[in-house]
Amino acid sequence: LDRLFKPRSIAVVGASPNPRSIGNLLLKRILDYGFQGRVYPVNPKYSSILGLKCYPSVSSIGEHVDLAIVVTPAEVAVKVAEDCAKAGVEYIVVASGGFKEVGARGAELERKLVEAARAGGARVVGPNCMGVYSPRGRVTLFEGFPREPGDVALVSHSGGMAEMIVMMLAERGLGISLLASTGNEADLTLVDFIEYMSRDEDTRVIGGYIEQVKDGRRFLEEARKAAARKPIVLMKVGRGEAGRRAALFHTGALAGMDKVLSAAFKQAGVIRAETLLELVEYCMTFSRLNPTPVRGVGVITGPGGLGVVLVDAVEQAGLKAPEFTEETKLKLREILPPVAGVSNPADLTLAMVRDIDLVRRAALILDKDPKVDVMMVGVAAVLTYSRQIAEEFAKVMSEAGEQCSKPLVAVCPHVGEAETHLRKLVQAGIPVYLTPESAASSLAALSAYHKAKMKLTSPEAAS
Amino acid sequence: LDRLFKPRSIAVVGASPNPRSIGNLLLKRILDYGFQGRVYPVNPKYSSILGLKCYPSVSSIGEHVDLAIVVTPAEVAVKVAEDCAKAGVEYIVVASGGFKEVGARGAELERKLVEAARAGGARVVGPNCMGVYSPRGRVTLFEGFPREPGDVALVSHSGGMAEMIVMMLAERGLGISLLASTGNEADLTLVDFIEYMSRDEDTRVIGGYIEQVKDGRRFLEEARKAAARKPIVLMKVGRGEAGRRAALFHTGALAGMDKVLSAAFKQAGVIRAETLLELVEYCMTFSRLNPTPVRGVGVITGPGGLGVVLVDAVEQAGLKAPEFTEETKLKLREILPPVAGVSNPADLTLAMVRDIDLVRRAALILDKDPKVDVMMVGVAAVLTYSRQIAEEFAKVMSEAGEQCSKPLVAVCPHVGEAETHLRKLVQAGIPVYLTPESAASSLAALSAYHKAKMKLTSPEAAS
Repeated sequence: LDRLFKPRSIAVVGASPNPRSIGNLLLKRILDYGFQGRVYPVNPKYSSILGLKCYPSVSSIGEHVDLAIVVTPAEVAVKVAEDCAKAGVEYIVVASGGFKEVGARGAELERKLVEAARAGGARVVGPNCMGVYSPRGRVTLFEGFPREPGDVALVSHSGGMAEMIVMMLAERGLGISLLASTGNEADLTLVDFIEYMSRDEDTRVIGGYIEQVKDGRRFLEEARKAAARKPIVLMKVGRGEAGRRAALFHTGALAGMDKVLSAAFKQAGVIRAETLLELVEYCMTFSRLNPTPVRGVGVITGPGGLGVVLVDAVEQAGLKAPEFTEETKLKLREILPPVAGVSNPADLTLAMVRDIDLVRRAALILDKDPKVDVMMVGVAAVLTYSRQIAEEFAKVMSEAGEQCSKPLVAVCPHVGEAETHLRKLVQAGIPVYLTPESAASSLAALSAYHKAKMKLTSPEAAS
Repeated sequence: LDRLFKPRSIAVVGASPNPRSIGNLLLKRILDYGFQGRVYPVNPKYSSILGLKCYPSVSSIGEHVDLAIVVTPAEVAVKVAEDCAKAGVEYIVVASGGFKEVGARGAELERKLVEAARAGGARVVGPNCMGVYSPRGRVTLFEGFPREPGDVALVSHSGGMAEMIVMMLAERGLGISLLASTGNEADLTLVDFIEYMSRDEDTRVIGGYIEQVKDGRRFLEEARKAAARKPIVLMKVGRGEAGRRAALFHTGALAGMDKVLSAAFKQAGVIRAETLLELVEYCMTFSRLNPTPVRGVGVITGPGGLGVVLVDAVEQAGLKAPEFTEETKLKLREILPPVAGVSNPADLTLAMVRDIDLVRRAALILDKDPKVDVMMVGVAAVLTYSRQIAEEFAKVMSEAGEQCSKPLVAVCPHVGEAETHLRKLVQAGIPVYLTPESAASSLAALSAYHKAKMKLTSPEAAS
């Protein structure tokens, strides 16, 4: 799929000078994002659009086209696919809707579309999709997406959900390596993309929003291989009756039995995110931390109450918040006020606000405790009241992150004025979670994937 | 508790001129927040603090003191309580720690403290607490709290969690009517506060962060009566082994059996919030909406994927997202593009971005559907890219809210540039949720409380 994510030339079929049309919008987005190769508007009605020469058909361009973006109505798209195939186009992204998701007639058009494309060796993304986003290839059909690449690859049946996930990740300071919005998946499916992304050097984790798994057997086989290479986190929707109906009308998806899929995911070593927030935060976790067994979580907080909430969440996620060793308790006693709890959580009390560096010193003490595998810091609301105090906190945290040998994470239910500094923390390798529950389940996922990967890459698994 | 939340005079015992001491900090906060009554610093070491005359003891003030705030070490606090009792002080807030939460010796001090206070008819809040916040009484011991009052009353065993919750509510445009941080609850307990708050005219909903229920029988009795008046939402922590240990070291709480409490809550008509986000969003829900049965939720979205996520969440929360009536579908077809799903969700597709008013028109159609009790709008990420588009969306939503007869809510997983406008929406009576799951469980809570209240206020319940 190299020429899909890093095309040398793009044709936009159905391009238009009308600024309110999708054919104008997508062409403009491609140009605005700074695509480096050649761009050819295609529409028999016009001779030039946005200052570029416009062609009546793809085959009339007379140059090799790596990627064609199609925004014409569904009926026309079939003819366009024939023309693209004739012209030797490698990939066709069909953005237009009106195919399988609208019923039997659309499904027939969809079948013909793929047939026409494949006859000439072209592969189809979509239809009913937003295509690809590839910051390193300087390609996007999405509005307002970041220029800075990252290490999270995404595959999504929904363009709108892809937007949501990319923006939620960007808010945490995380970027995308490759993104495919796959829509109805008439030809290329999520399995093809997962396979490709698992071998992409710039990708550390693969996330997905999915409405269906088309070929269960192939999915199991390929996902297993991909999961042996890197973590795959999927949010599978269409869980209940109404959800399945909604998925059907959205991308024509047959969502399938939810429990069966959960079992298949487990067997393949794929991590299931139960919620959108989990999907985003699991991706953040795997982007920043190496998979590792998490037997014990050591909690550090300013307000004691947040400490109780955090250890509760840790236990609810099936992890442990063990009582610290006597040595750890003694060392914590030396730096904390006499009223502070030192059992787990390490409760820094109000003393933290007067001396934020206590966070770092407590983290270093827990780092030496054999019962602790990850340190989790709860961020008090008072640390987010002003940018200045948030900056001071972030500084102490990144120092702690550098000095500790075990992973350090933060939980910040009230972001307030701290947003910029928390983003920098994530970029420095310290995940910052928005809820105690998603923080705890993220660490459980980190641990579960470590175990799954060991199993998938063991000599028995290979044979 | 009128004189606690609206005192005419306050003594700060342990006040200090040292700007890094808690005795200085709290005195300054009281003055800065604009308390209208008289303030008396008390400390035998000084003759004046922050420009106010300082007294050697409360009894030496020679005027009636409604409320004494005590920040001295635990050992001294017992003597102070004796002096307060002698001087006829009505309420003593003991902010200092070092009592039951540190073990047997502290527990003994705590017993003596209450004994001394009660001997003179004074009631104690705490110890180990942050006391009260009462915007209408112009009193707070907390830093940076809003001046604007609201209709959410809060009771919290943890001062730090109270801060977190208040700031999370403020971010949504919601204010507080009364707040009590109760710490170790040596005398006044959450039951006393719930009872008082349930009869407060400015309060629409009572929220609580609680680590223990001290007197189960009294709690059941009083919570039942209070819940018959208004909704009570409690987040009870200390759920597992580590959580119970953490609560013990935090406020000396015996967290008790989690399942027993869940059953007791249900019996009393108290709503349990499972997470901090739920606590905040349930409070938002009851502050903005009247309790109502929610049999069917009608979902409206721009990106179809978010629609699938929302109906999934609705079903997971035990509610229904029923297929719309044929009449509704026909009416939706008239305003939506032919590719749009109209079954539930109503999928506005990309057309929404070009014509945001579609949201209002779709809401008005669902408002007439007998299978829909609440309309839930999923906010696409693209609507949060700029303040301008967010403003336009908020305008359309508030118009829809005014024109619909059924409740309208929004779900906005990516806030982006929309924060200010979403806050205004909440203030206009339209709850905005941050996750699909908490939105759905909030509506389930709205419905469950309606049912519980009917039962609690039925003639049989009264007899």
